[in-house]
Amino acid sequence: MTQHISTRLDFWFDFASTYSYPAAMRLDTLARERQIDLRYRPFLLGPIFAEAGWRNSPFNIYPAKGKYMWRDMERICAAQGLAWQRPDPFPQNSLLAARVTLALEEGARGAFIRAVYAAEFGEGKPIAERQVLADILKHIGQHANAVLERAASEPVKAKLKSETEEARRLGIFGSPSFITEDGELFWGNDRAIEALDWAASGGP
Amino acid sequence: MTQHISTRLDFWFDFASTYSYPAAMRLDTLARERQIDLRYRPFLLGPIFAEAGWRNSPFNIYPAKGKYMWRDMERICAAQGLAWQRPDPFPQNSLLAARVTLALEEGARGAFIRAVYAAEFGEGKPIAERQVLADILKHIGQHANAVLERAASEPVKAKLKSETEEARRLGIFGSPSFITEDGELFWGNDRAIEALDWAASGGP
Repeated sequence: MTQHISTRLDFWFDFASTYSYPAAMRLDTLARERQIDLRYRPFLLGPIFAEAGWRNSPFNIYPAKGKYMWRDMERICAAQGLAWQRPDPFPQNSLLAARVTLALEEGARGAFIRAVYAAEFGEGKPIAERQVLADILKHIGQHANAVLERAASEPVKAKLKSETEEARRLGIFGSPSFITEDGELFWGNDRAIEALDWAASGGP
Repeated sequence: MTQHISTRLDFWFDFASTYSYPAAMRLDTLARERQIDLRYRPFLLGPIFAEAGWRNSPFNIYPAKGKYMWRDMERICAAQGLAWQRPDPFPQNSLLAARVTLALEEGARGAFIRAVYAAEFGEGKPIAERQVLADILKHIGQHANAVLERAASEPVKAKLKSETEEARRLGIFGSPSFITEDGELFWGNDRAIEALDWAASGGP
């Protein structure tokens, strides 16, 4: 008998999510080390939070949780050697960045995602703004206007909706989330290594 | 200049909390290894959750979060070599167990706490029941009736209320939580080691 080895890991994320920043910045390297095929799957937490009755980030709705998260992010970024700035406003609108990700070839997504997270949480840039994303696209060697045009197309809009629906169907309720080929869901930056290791070995 | 070394760590917990079980079962050993004086501080999440608008465990209110937590607990307990049973009903009423903890001498609390968590989540026993706690008290060498009588006294009831109020004042919003002498709050079983290491070294 041969054990089935999972080599794919889906990384589900919303660009507005604080804890997704330290996850996104290290995931590609960690996946390569384990020969894992990482799939970037942007989605929107908004519709999923709305189902829970939240019209805002739970970190804004629940002040003690929010206060803790901001301090926790400082500690995490310091430990990981990442620049850190608290975005204002929080959460940033992540719709356009998510659509742009889906408008890119798969091979270009990792660099874009890291650049967006670094701009948002490392430099405090407003990632909802078209110009901020255009600058990032140019910086990673993309034709910004062409990509932004695709990002505004109906197929890309529909894809983001169906991906968000798929996230909900898979039981995702927060970002970042990881799903292995054998269907294990891991939630949170704290579970990144565990998810990668599970994916690499096909089990715990 | 001598760096101030924190050697105390406060472990804030509600007996109803699932993630507090794997934390409680290993904390004493981990604290001893680091020569940390661990203080067990039971409190009630109920009043704190009520302030957030929750009249039940968020794991019951938000089904996707709950489904994930039950699977996550299986994984954590398997990795830690802990027996695991899902309590029914969940959450268990933790009031009496919290009062009994406060009725015990500090030196006896660790053994009691581990025994209660093991009964609840390892064996599926109803920890709200006086007889279950009496059996545990006898097992750890306590005079069960005397302790249970103290647990029902006004000073102990008042102490649990003031401890819960203190938890809220300290910004605690979940269990387990850890607070170092220099005031760092760490939330969750996932932060146990980080909290212990911070306490042992007086910083990150």
